[in-house]
Amino acid sequence: MSHNTFGHLFRVTTFGESHGVALGCVVDGCPPGIAIEAADIQAELDRRKPGQSRFTTQRREPDQVRILSGVFADDRTGGVQLTTGTPIALEIENTDQRSKDYSEIRDSYRPGHADYAYDAKYGIRDYRGGGRSSARETAARVAAGAIARRVLPADIVIRAALVQMGPHAVDRSRWDWDEVARNPFFCPDAETAKFYEEYLDGIRKDGSSIGAVIEVVAEGVPPGLGAPIYGKLDADLAAAMMSINAVKGVEIGDGFASAALRGEENADEMRSGNAGAPTFLANHAGGVLGGISTGQPLICRFAVKPTSSILTPRMSVTTNNRDVDLVTKGRHDPCVGIRAVPVAEAMMACVLADHYLRHRGQVGTRDRE
Amino acid sequence: MSHNTFGHLFRVTTFGESHGVALGCVVDGCPPGIAIEAADIQAELDRRKPGQSRFTTQRREPDQVRILSGVFADDRTGGVQLTTGTPIALEIENTDQRSKDYSEIRDSYRPGHADYAYDAKYGIRDYRGGGRSSARETAARVAAGAIARRVLPADIVIRAALVQMGPHAVDRSRWDWDEVARNPFFCPDAETAKFYEEYLDGIRKDGSSIGAVIEVVAEGVPPGLGAPIYGKLDADLAAAMMSINAVKGVEIGDGFASAALRGEENADEMRSGNAGAPTFLANHAGGVLGGISTGQPLICRFAVKPTSSILTPRMSVTTNNRDVDLVTKGRHDPCVGIRAVPVAEAMMACVLADHYLRHRGQVGTRDRE
Amino acid sequence: MSHNTFGHLFRVTTFGESHGVALGCVVDGCPPGIAIEAADIQAELDRRKPGQSRFTTQRREPDQVRILSGVFADDRTGGVQLTTGTPIALEIENTDQRSKDYSEIRDSYRPGHADYAYDAKYGIRDYRGGGRSSARETAARVAAGAIARRVLPADIVIRAALVQMGPHAVDRSRWDWDEVARNPFFCPDAETAKFYEEYLDGIRKDGSSIGAVIEVVAEGVPPGLGAPIYGKLDADLAAAMMSINAVKGVEIGDGFASAALRGEENADEMRSGNAGAPTFLANHAGGVLGGISTGQPLICRFAVKPTSSILTPRMSVTTNNRDVDLVTKGRHDPCVGIRAVPVAEAMMACVLADHYLRHRGQVGTRDRE
Amino acid sequence: MSHNTFGHLFRVTTFGESHGVALGCVVDGCPPGIAIEAADIQAELDRRKPGQSRFTTQRREPDQVRILSGVFADDRTGGVQLTTGTPIALEIENTDQRSKDYSEIRDSYRPGHADYAYDAKYGIRDYRGGGRSSARETAARVAAGAIARRVLPADIVIRAALVQMGPHAVDRSRWDWDEVARNPFFCPDAETAKFYEEYLDGIRKDGSSIGAVIEVVAEGVPPGLGAPIYGKLDADLAAAMMSINAVKGVEIGDGFASAALRGEENADEMRSGNAGAPTFLANHAGGVLGGISTGQPLICRFAVKPTSSILTPRMSVTTNNRDVDLVTKGRHDPCVGIRAVPVAEAMMACVLADHYLRHRGQVGTRDRE
Repeated sequence: MSHNTFGHLFRVTTFGESHGVALGCVVDGCPPGIAIEAADIQAELDRRKPGQSRFTTQRREPDQVRILSGVFADDRTGGVQLTTGTPIALEIENTDQRSKDYSEIRDSYRPGHADYAYDAKYGIRDYRGGGRSSARETAARVAAGAIARRVLPADIVIRAALVQMGPHAVDRSRWDWDEVARNPFFCPDAETAKFYEEYLDGIRKDGSSIGAVIEVVAEGVPPGLGAPIYGKLDADLAAAMMSINAVKGVEIGDGFASAALRGEENADEMRSGNAGAPTFLANHAGGVLGGISTGQPLICRFAVKPTSSILTPRMSVTTNNRDVDLVTKGRHDPCVGIRAVPVAEAMMACVLADHYLRHRGQVGTRDRE
Repeated sequence: MSHNTFGHLFRVTTFGESHGVALGCVVDGCPPGIAIEAADIQAELDRRKPGQSRFTTQRREPDQVRILSGVFADDRTGGVQLTTGTPIALEIENTDQRSKDYSEIRDSYRPGHADYAYDAKYGIRDYRGGGRSSARETAARVAAGAIARRVLPADIVIRAALVQMGPHAVDRSRWDWDEVARNPFFCPDAETAKFYEEYLDGIRKDGSSIGAVIEVVAEGVPPGLGAPIYGKLDADLAAAMMSINAVKGVEIGDGFASAALRGEENADEMRSGNAGAPTFLANHAGGVLGGISTGQPLICRFAVKPTSSILTPRMSVTTNNRDVDLVTKGRHDPCVGIRAVPVAEAMMACVLADHYLRHRGQVGTRDRE
Repeated sequence: MSHNTFGHLFRVTTFGESHGVALGCVVDGCPPGIAIEAADIQAELDRRKPGQSRFTTQRREPDQVRILSGVFADDRTGGVQLTTGTPIALEIENTDQRSKDYSEIRDSYRPGHADYAYDAKYGIRDYRGGGRSSARETAARVAAGAIARRVLPADIVIRAALVQMGPHAVDRSRWDWDEVARNPFFCPDAETAKFYEEYLDGIRKDGSSIGAVIEVVAEGVPPGLGAPIYGKLDADLAAAMMSINAVKGVEIGDGFASAALRGEENADEMRSGNAGAPTFLANHAGGVLGGISTGQPLICRFAVKPTSSILTPRMSVTTNNRDVDLVTKGRHDPCVGIRAVPVAEAMMACVLADHYLRHRGQVGTRDRE
Repeated sequence: MSHNTFGHLFRVTTFGESHGVALGCVVDGCPPGIAIEAADIQAELDRRKPGQSRFTTQRREPDQVRILSGVFADDRTGGVQLTTGTPIALEIENTDQRSKDYSEIRDSYRPGHADYAYDAKYGIRDYRGGGRSSARETAARVAAGAIARRVLPADIVIRAALVQMGPHAVDRSRWDWDEVARNPFFCPDAETAKFYEEYLDGIRKDGSSIGAVIEVVAEGVPPGLGAPIYGKLDADLAAAMMSINAVKGVEIGDGFASAALRGEENADEMRSGNAGAPTFLANHAGGVLGGISTGQPLICRFAVKPTSSILTPRMSVTTNNRDVDLVTKGRHDPCVGIRAVPVAEAMMACVLADHYLRHRGQVGTRDRE
C-alpha cells in the first residue's frame, strides 16, 4: 500500500474528492477473460449507496459507474464483455454536490476530523464535504472489489456484517447471514437489528453519532495464500481495513481476546481429514497462521469510531488558531460503521485477489519440484 | 509491504531462518551523513536478546551484529562512521543451533504454528526451529529500527511496554516509563511486574504459555506524517505490527473501545495553542486523523497470542495426514509477547522514518506554494 | 515501472484504449500548492494531437482533457487552482472512433504489430485501432508530463527534437531550438525540415512509413538527482523512453559512439567553476555519471521504428494460423517518430520530477550531517 | 527498479562497496523447490571474476559466495538442497582490499567517474576503489542471475558475447557461440578475438582504455512475457542493462538501425507454423512487439564506455574546487566491457525470471476464460 494505490499484482489506484467532478479507480493487473458488466459493479455499489434508509446520510448520489477501459466484447467472445488484461478504469460522477456555504468548515477544524491533519500536511485542503478524506472515496473500493470477487475462484464466499453498535453486540447464537440483507444495518441477528432501529433513532435525534464493529468472513479460501514476512495475509488485511475511514482497530480470529488465552486453549487442534488436508477442530487463529491462509474461514473484525460530524457544539480552533465552538451541520451518517460493511467485503476481496495472483506467480503449479 | 521488504523510501529487506547460517537485513534509502556504529545497533539487539531471564527462551544467542556496507569513516569526517546513502547490510550469525533430532516437528504439524501453512504454500519447509517463521527473524527488525531511530529528528521518543499478560492488565495510574527497564517484562507498573513474576512462573512450570498486549508510543511526532489513502500512517502501523510473529490484533488510540463511544465523547476537542498549532484536550484518536499525524502522541497497541509450543499434548496430524498427539519440546518463550516490546519500538521507528522521508519528498519545505 | 504505473514518488498510472470510452491517467504523489489549469495541460496535448498536418494520422481527436480530482481553488488561494497533494485524475474522451469493419485486423496479425503478442499473452485482444497498444495511449503521458514540468524548479528546461528521419540526420551546426515549433516535424534544422517535407511525402504516397531518431535534452538539472544502483537516472530514462510505442533503442550522451572511444577521449575534463561547482569541458556522459546527474545538460536519444501499418501487402497469418497477405488500411502516421517528440519531453519531465522528489526525500537539506 | 532493488516478483536487492566488508544480495520471491548449490552460483561468478587474464583488472578476489538463507536440504528431499520460497541471501566477502594511500581520489574527482556525482548527491563518498559505484557490485547481480536461470524453464538459453571493441566489430558470418568460452574477450568470432589480443595489449600499454558493445540473446523464451505499458519486457531490459556500470546505450533487435528502415523492411513477416504458432521470417523486432515476447530470440545490445581510470593525465578539480591534473593509478580493466558479458546474461535472466512469474501470476493457465 502506497499513497493512493494498494495491491501488488491486483493493484487498485483510487482518486477523487467528495465534491469534485468525479471519483473512481484504476484496477491494474486483472487477469484477462473475466466476464464483467457495469451492472455487476453497480449491484455492489448500490449496497453502499447513501440515502437508502434514515440511518445513513441523506445525500442523494446515484453512484452510477462507467467502465472506461480494460474490457471488450466482440463476436469472437459471443458478445460477452470480458476483461482484456489491461487497466480497468471506473468512474463515478459526483452529482449531488450542494452549493452551500462552506465557510464554517473552511475556516475551522472539526474535532475528530482530518481537517487539521490535512492542513498540517499539505498547507491546503479541499474542505467541501471533507474532500479526499470523505468516506465517499470508499465507493471506488467497492467498485474495485466487485472485480476482485470475479478474479477469485467461485467457491470463495466473502460476507460481512455489523456485529456491534455502540456497546451493543449481536447475539452470535442467532447469527443468520440471510438476515444481513433484510435490515438497514447489515446485522446478522434479527432481534438485535430491531433493537438498533430504536437505538440509532435516539442517537440520530440527539444529533449525535455512534461507533460500531464490523466482521468480515471469507470462506473457501484455499490454504497457502499470503506472503511472509511483510506481505502476510493478516498484515495486508490489517492495513486494508485500517485504511477505511474511521477505523481504529483490526483483529484476526480471536484477536485481542487471545492475549488472555493459554497456549493449550489457543492451539487449533487438528485431525486427519478426508481430502488429505487436516480438519481443524477450532479456529482461534481466524484462518491464518504465520501469515498464510490455512483453509479455515478467514475472520477479520474492525472497530469504527463514531462520525465526528455532530450537532453538539465542540471546542475547536479556527485555521488562524482562534478558539471557536463548532457544530457540524450537513448530511451525515449517525453510524458510519453501517456503510463500512460492503466496503469491508470489497477490501477483503481485493486483498485475496492480490494474494491469489501473487501465490500463483511465485508457486504456480509447482511443476518444477 | 511486500514479501520480505517493507517501507517505501526507508526500505528494509530481511532474510534468514532460525537455524540457518545467518539472518539479517538490508536497509535501503537511509539518508547520508548519519553517525552510526555497530554498538548503537547492538544496544537495541541486546534488549531483545533471548536468554536474559528465566522468562524467555533459554537459547543462547549473542546476536552479534556486523555492518557489511553502507557506512564509511575517514579523516574528512573526523573518523566518525557515517551512513553514505547506499544500502546498509546487517548480519547476525546463528551460533546456538543445537544439533538435535527434529524428526517430530519435521513429520508433524504443531497446532497453532505456521508448519502446516508453510507446507501448504511452498510444499517444503525448513522445520528447524520454525525456519523463517521463527520469532528470531525479529532480530533483523530491531537492527533496522536502530538505524530508523537515527533517521528521525532527535526529539521523537519511541517507547513500548507490556500492558497486559493473560487477563491481567497493568494499572495505568502507576505507569512509569523508567520502570520498563527494571523488570524482565518491560512492564511500566512495578507492582504488576511483581505479580507477573509469580504468574508467569506458574505458566512456565505448567509447560504452558500465555498471551499479552503491548503498547507502543511515539512522542514528538510532527503533524503531517502519513500518506492517505493507502499509505495512511495508522494503516502502515497496523501492517507493521500485525507482521510481528503471533500478533492477532492492532489498535490505534481508543481502538476497539471507540466502537462504544458517542461522537461527542470521541471528538478530541481543541483550544488555540501557543506555537500557532492547536492544543488537543484529549487523544482518543491516538495521534492520527485521516491517516495523518496530528502532533499528539502516536499510540498503538497490539495483542500477542500465547506461544503454541507447549508441553501439554495437543491433537494434530502428521505430514502424511495421520492423527498424532503432539508435545512441543525445546526452548520456548512462555510469553512471547515480552520480547515483542523492543520489536514494537523498532517497527514504529521504521514506519515513522519511512513517512518522515516520504513527507519530505512530497511536501518538502513547500517553497513553491 | 510496473504494469501500467511508473514512478516511485511522482507516480503515473495510465489507462485506456484507442477506441474505448476514454483514456487518461492518475498522477499520484504530486506536491501540494502547485498552480495548474486544464489549459496548461491542454497546451501540451495540442502539440501531440493528431491531424495537424498531412504528415500525421488523419484521425480527428480534440484530445480535450478534464481534471477530475486533486486540484482546488477557493478564496483562501485567491481563486487560483492549486494541487492539493491528492491524486490528480485526468480524462480524455475518445470521440473519433469510426465504426468501421475491423474484421481484417480482428482475424489476422499485422506484421510488426503487437497483435500476435497480445493474443499470445492474454488470449483476447481489443483489436479496434490497436487497443491498448495504440500510440494513442501517449496522450495520457503528455498530460502527466504537463504536471511534472510544474513540479520541477522553473529553471529546468526540457526540449526535444527529431534529429533523424530514415537515414537522414539533421545538420547539428544548424541546430536552432526555435525552429522546432516552426515545422511539422519538430526538426531543429530548417533546411533539413524542408527536405523532410518532400521526403516524407514520397514515403506517404508510397503507402510506406519510415523510422526516426528523437533527442531530448534537459537543461538546468541540478547535480545529485538519481538513485543508484537500480534507480539510476539513466536507467529510469532508458525504461521511460523504451516504453514509448515503437522505440527500439535508447542512448545517453555519446551512447553507442562511446564504444569506439578511448578513455582519454571519453573522460569529461573539469576545471574549477565559479559557484564552487566544477565546470565541465565536455559532455560525452550526457549529464549523468554513476546514475546521478552532474549538472550538465541531460541528453537522451532514442530510435523509433517505422509504423507497421502500411499499404504494401505483407505475409502474415490469421488467428487460426492460416497464411494471409495483409494490407493495413486506416489512418496512420507515415513517421510515428514525429509525434514522439512531445511524448519524449513528457517522459523526461516525469522521470525528473520523480527523482527530484526522491532526492528531496532521501537527502533533504542534509541538516543532520 | 528502485534504489537498490529490482524486479517485481523475482526481486533482487544488492548491497556492498568495492572495499567494504562484503557485498551480496537478497533474492526474494524465488519459487520453492528449485535445486541450487553454492557451486552452481560459484560457476557463474568465476566467469566474471577479475584477474583471469592480463586483459582484466589484476585485483585478486576469489569471489567466494556463501548462501546464508532460503535453501534447505533434508531427508525428505533426498538431501538435495532446495529453495524454500523464503529470501535467499548471498554474501561475498571482500578479501583483496589493498591498504593503500587513497588520498588522491579522496581529494579529487576522476573525470568520467561517479566521484563528483556521489559527492554532489550525498555530501559523502566511500572513495576506496569507487565504493558503491565500483563494477564490483555486479558480482551480486551475477550471483542472483545464477538463481534466476534456474527459475526459468530449462529450454530457455541465455548467452552473451562481446561484439565490438573500440571501432572493431566482429564478423557475424563467423559467429560461433562455442568460441565465446575459448578466448578472454567472450568474443564469438575467433579471428577477431585474435585481433583483439594485440589491439587491447596496445591500449593497455598506452595506459588507456577502450569501449565495447555486448550482445545478449535469450532463445526459447515463450511468447507472452512482458507487462505493457510500463512493465514492457524491452523497457525492463533497457533499464536492467543501462543500470550496469559504464553502459551508455541499449537497443533491441535492429535498434538504432530501424530508424533508417521503411515499414515494409521492418515488418517481420509470418507464415503459418506447425505447432499452431506462426513462424516469423525475420526478427527485426528482436523478439518483442508491444512490450511482449513473440517467441523469437530476444536480442539486446548495449554499449559500454571506456574505463575512465587511465594513466594519461586529465584535467580535473579537487573537492575544494581547485584545478588539478589527475592520473588514476591502481588496478583497472582496460576494457571494462569484457566482464560485462556474464553480467548481461545475469540481468537478462533476472528480467525474464521476473516476467515469467508475473505472467504466471496474472494470466496463469487461463482456466477461467
